[in-house]
Amino acid sequence: MKVGVIGASGYSGETLVKLLLNHSQVTLGAVTSRQHAGKPLAQVIPALRGLDRGMHFVGSDAAALAATDIALFFLALPHGAAADYARAFIAAGKKVIDLSADFRIADLATYTRYYGEHHAPELLAQARFVLPELAPAGWKEFPLIAAPGCYPTSVLVPLAPLLRDGVVSREHIVANSYSAVSGAGRKVEEMYLFVERAESTKAYGLTKHRHLAEIEEQLALHSGAKTVIQFNPHLAPMRRGIATTITVPAATGAGIETLYATWRKAYADRPFIQLLPSGETPDTAYVAGTNRVDMSAVLDPRTGNFVITSAIDNLVKGASGQAVQIMNLWFGFPETAGLV
Amino acid sequence: MKVGVIGASGYSGETLVKLLLNHSQVTLGAVTSRQHAGKPLAQVIPALRGLDRGMHFVGSDAAALAATDIALFFLALPHGAAADYARAFIAAGKKVIDLSADFRIADLATYTRYYGEHHAPELLAQARFVLPELAPAGWKEFPLIAAPGCYPTSVLVPLAPLLRDGVVSREHIVANSYSAVSGAGRKVEEMYLFVERAESTKAYGLTKHRHLAEIEEQLALHSGAKTVIQFNPHLAPMRRGIATTITVPAATGAGIETLYATWRKAYADRPFIQLLPSGETPDTAYVAGTNRVDMSAVLDPRTGNFVITSAIDNLVKGASGQAVQIMNLWFGFPETAGLV
Amino acid sequence: MKVGVIGASGYSGETLVKLLLNHSQVTLGAVTSRQHAGKPLAQVIPALRGLDRGMHFVGSDAAALAATDIALFFLALPHGAAADYARAFIAAGKKVIDLSADFRIADLATYTRYYGEHHAPELLAQARFVLPELAPAGWKEFPLIAAPGCYPTSVLVPLAPLLRDGVVSREHIVANSYSAVSGAGRKVEEMYLFVERAESTKAYGLTKHRHLAEIEEQLALHSGAKTVIQFNPHLAPMRRGIATTITVPAATGAGIETLYATWRKAYADRPFIQLLPSGETPDTAYVAGTNRVDMSAVLDPRTGNFVITSAIDNLVKGASGQAVQIMNLWFGFPETAGLV
Amino acid sequence: MKVGVIGASGYSGETLVKLLLNHSQVTLGAVTSRQHAGKPLAQVIPALRGLDRGMHFVGSDAAALAATDIALFFLALPHGAAADYARAFIAAGKKVIDLSADFRIADLATYTRYYGEHHAPELLAQARFVLPELAPAGWKEFPLIAAPGCYPTSVLVPLAPLLRDGVVSREHIVANSYSAVSGAGRKVEEMYLFVERAESTKAYGLTKHRHLAEIEEQLALHSGAKTVIQFNPHLAPMRRGIATTITVPAATGAGIETLYATWRKAYADRPFIQLLPSGETPDTAYVAGTNRVDMSAVLDPRTGNFVITSAIDNLVKGASGQAVQIMNLWFGFPETAGLV
Repeated sequence: MKVGVIGASGYSGETLVKLLLNHSQVTLGAVTSRQHAGKPLAQVIPALRGLDRGMHFVGSDAAALAATDIALFFLALPHGAAADYARAFIAAGKKVIDLSADFRIADLATYTRYYGEHHAPELLAQARFVLPELAPAGWKEFPLIAAPGCYPTSVLVPLAPLLRDGVVSREHIVANSYSAVSGAGRKVEEMYLFVERAESTKAYGLTKHRHLAEIEEQLALHSGAKTVIQFNPHLAPMRRGIATTITVPAATGAGIETLYATWRKAYADRPFIQLLPSGETPDTAYVAGTNRVDMSAVLDPRTGNFVITSAIDNLVKGASGQAVQIMNLWFGFPETAGLV
Repeated sequence: MKVGVIGASGYSGETLVKLLLNHSQVTLGAVTSRQHAGKPLAQVIPALRGLDRGMHFVGSDAAALAATDIALFFLALPHGAAADYARAFIAAGKKVIDLSADFRIADLATYTRYYGEHHAPELLAQARFVLPELAPAGWKEFPLIAAPGCYPTSVLVPLAPLLRDGVVSREHIVANSYSAVSGAGRKVEEMYLFVERAESTKAYGLTKHRHLAEIEEQLALHSGAKTVIQFNPHLAPMRRGIATTITVPAATGAGIETLYATWRKAYADRPFIQLLPSGETPDTAYVAGTNRVDMSAVLDPRTGNFVITSAIDNLVKGASGQAVQIMNLWFGFPETAGLV
Repeated sequence: MKVGVIGASGYSGETLVKLLLNHSQVTLGAVTSRQHAGKPLAQVIPALRGLDRGMHFVGSDAAALAATDIALFFLALPHGAAADYARAFIAAGKKVIDLSADFRIADLATYTRYYGEHHAPELLAQARFVLPELAPAGWKEFPLIAAPGCYPTSVLVPLAPLLRDGVVSREHIVANSYSAVSGAGRKVEEMYLFVERAESTKAYGLTKHRHLAEIEEQLALHSGAKTVIQFNPHLAPMRRGIATTITVPAATGAGIETLYATWRKAYADRPFIQLLPSGETPDTAYVAGTNRVDMSAVLDPRTGNFVITSAIDNLVKGASGQAVQIMNLWFGFPETAGLV
Repeated sequence: MKVGVIGASGYSGETLVKLLLNHSQVTLGAVTSRQHAGKPLAQVIPALRGLDRGMHFVGSDAAALAATDIALFFLALPHGAAADYARAFIAAGKKVIDLSADFRIADLATYTRYYGEHHAPELLAQARFVLPELAPAGWKEFPLIAAPGCYPTSVLVPLAPLLRDGVVSREHIVANSYSAVSGAGRKVEEMYLFVERAESTKAYGLTKHRHLAEIEEQLALHSGAKTVIQFNPHLAPMRRGIATTITVPAATGAGIETLYATWRKAYADRPFIQLLPSGETPDTAYVAGTNRVDMSAVLDPRTGNFVITSAIDNLVKGASGQAVQIMNLWFGFPETAGLV
């Protein structure tokens, strides 16, 4: 099967191209770049030297691409830019996995509040948000799949089943996340310079980070009621990884065994979910380069809270790896194909 | 005035020696080290090359040191090791600033629960915990001052006045702290190796970190009632710094202006407290090498919580700089002498 | 085919196990560890969570291992420790790839001078040093293959063909190498702590680094005459990678095109050698996780020197990846199997 | 005495302002910035919070500044931009210390070859390059002092006296330098992003780095003859520091003691020069924040080369600290005033 990648100049796009080049079940039919059309992939992405099979970036003409024999397109574009491609590809009967935020939020008003005007609201009905371990049945029938954001993945995987099964309170949820600098993408701004970020840990985007929209919409789906959380994102001096720590009151009568039993039930046989024993905490370094979510929890008898910790690679499980995982499930490939 | 440093082989001890060598009001009379007695300071602490004024480490005989003309001793020892020195020095009429945990906890039962047997319980009555910006009047009359821990400093400075003035709830307080690796001291263990820690952010010590004892005893003092918090410490890949983020429900009617007014009243004219505007967040990189606490807060109207952020240098305001600040106030030197 | 790994607690051993678990042509029959026998692989090597196929470390009894159906053993042990295993395995007709220094030096006197007494000198005649891109024909007939060291790989690949073809002088060769901290292995010593190494670049082992023995013996083989170089190793604050810069006088009449023509001839069709255009320099970040050698050169008309630069991942092409590459060639697998 | 700083938005400028604010002998009369005029210093340079004494950036009108009672101006501008200021200030009888390259090269043709057209060639006769430990007598009579570059400082301090006294060859000199990323200044370019530079060591600017002009002109002055060196600059993933390693053939009969004797003679009583014992190597981490040059050497009997290593803080001894040191000597302040 042939696949294409639209927009590969960011960190997620690069990672995606590398995963797809090494994937045994698919062939990379096209990688587009407005800026780099005509150049060999490895000239722009030196990590691909020797791996790019002579491929060159091609231009970004949506109609031309829609006329090829490529069956699945990954959109790795900034939010707002995916609309035209999505429209053309879906009209041509292609399948689309979008890594941007554009189709993650089902509620248009919420989207607009966080991101501004939507460029393709008519496509929302054909789109589904798919975090593979949490997605409701039936998603494979939709042509346009929105891959989750990095922070939401690190929060939803541990928290959603606990809310769904009533193991935790829906009140007083606090999530602190510490993200690698690559989470900001390849933004050439002073704050992302090496000298500014090395030795710097700081909070940012407090009370209004865009991923909040996605987190809360999903939590409401799983808990069955509006769920408001305090989400505090931070930057940490790493290249890759998100470490998330969630404090949430235990439901009456729920102990640490209840929590682990819920997780085991929700994630039995899911190859990318690793439950660490209570008391052992996940580490971003150990998930680097993998599609895993490592997670664990403790119950604090003094406060009655669970403290839940998770770690992911923001560019893999938080972006490109998860997109490949979605493809694998969608097209009947082994779930772990091309992923470790 | 002559001062002495007992135990200077750790990161805090090194930093303290450097601060004291550059301090215009004191002379360093002795720096002790069991292991390094007889060696030039700079041979063991290369950062002091050219600065050590020909000083050598001396042995650690408490009685001999108590018989010198040194007026003030800093104890930079692991907890449990300070007792003999403190006893000898105080008996000889010296003043002592202890950087360990041994005299930070007034309640012996609490100390024992977190640290095990106390080695000098009879000295507790002569000791006072002094975080300079929060210390109650009268502390200068006590001969034995316990300098605060690093995490507690980053939590207590922003939080204590808010509890005292009823601006925030005493329930549902969650503090997440991200500490540089130097916070563990110079422990030669696998988990502190460069390759293990670079690219690693992780939680540790959840629900039972020893600094919790100190934080909650102080919060109770300031709030006037038992106060239990969720304290989640983490390691981040930095050499220096702590970034703390506190989520706490606002008291009824308290807005962001109430909070800032409380801070301004509590810390008017305190040279090391920097209030950043709401919406701007402190950064560990900007406080590196300084004795400052940078802090700010936002009110989240969706949750009713304040989200409060602070940043300190764990080895300066979190340890040695704060000890020097205590000395400055105790002996009538300018509060900022030898500190920036 | 079944393979075994003897000693997997170091960084190279870990990397090797991960590569072999993902290798389509071999099955990992045994991974030994004195210290960890009986534990699941992933408990000791958290990066393998979800990847270890339920494998446990086994004990280190050479005779018992020699009696299994494992056809090839990788020895990932400190130098000096490989002798007993090598002896038992070879006696039993197994093949062995040794990642230590023990069989890299053909000349016993040289070995002894740099490393001390050799523990299995009688095996030297059955051993061959194999840097795949430079190895002389016939090496596949020997049962014991010594995989090259990390620094030597980064020096020999660019330099050996130039000496062989007389493109450069044999005099006044200066090689400066900058290695990631993982090059020291997982040594739990103060100098390898995060706080000591972050922000630290320094030379070490000047004039007497052990890899010098290996570099010079190989250079003599390729140049046909004794060749003495100045090799200056350094530590740089990275987890992975070696950047090597070699200054060497150009032979009379040799220009930059001569040099690149020699490289192209020597390395035509070698999948892991990447020649960058003159003026573009290799970067450790781009080879991380790969088995590549990226290299380039410039001619300085002012000095008459070539300045040659190379970059490798010290744990992959500098150790475990190269060992897998040797296996691939030895057993007729595709050269790039299991490697990127 | 009042001093002014022209251009303080770069890393060197920031460091300079901080040093001058803490300097006991001078008052900071003006800090200019086209972009930030009117803003408090600490708003633009957060590291100065609490230290900026209420100062604001002022505009950059050279004539207006020349009319003030400021006696000495530091120019911390990109090369090419200093001309107008230098002209106005010198015409008004002020003294000037220029941190850019504009007046470091006495030979106009050399300057032009490396930097392009000179904007104030008529001032060259009034300018002197001053590396304090190497400057010839009489420099204090010139109104315009060029402070050395960072790489040149790390090369010239160890090498110049050895060439002057004939302890080393003038041929086959190779200097490899590894610089922190701050050496590039605060350039907002993709290659300086955190994600690009962390884990990256690489050579750049081979055979044509601009600092070569300055190094070779000075080496010729000290050696008494044209001296050509191979200078290989590299970027290392650090915030601060340069580690330089120089390989140079020993002169006939010169041993390691000859070398150290030459250094001791050249640098007796110079407070910022630290000679480490042969075999101990300098470390960038130990000079961070200081104005020191740590250096040492070994003789390699196999090659007949000295291998010389030095470490400096590129922003202090390599820029702003050295400028303050020049001021101290020029105006008769203690050489170490305001510096550690």
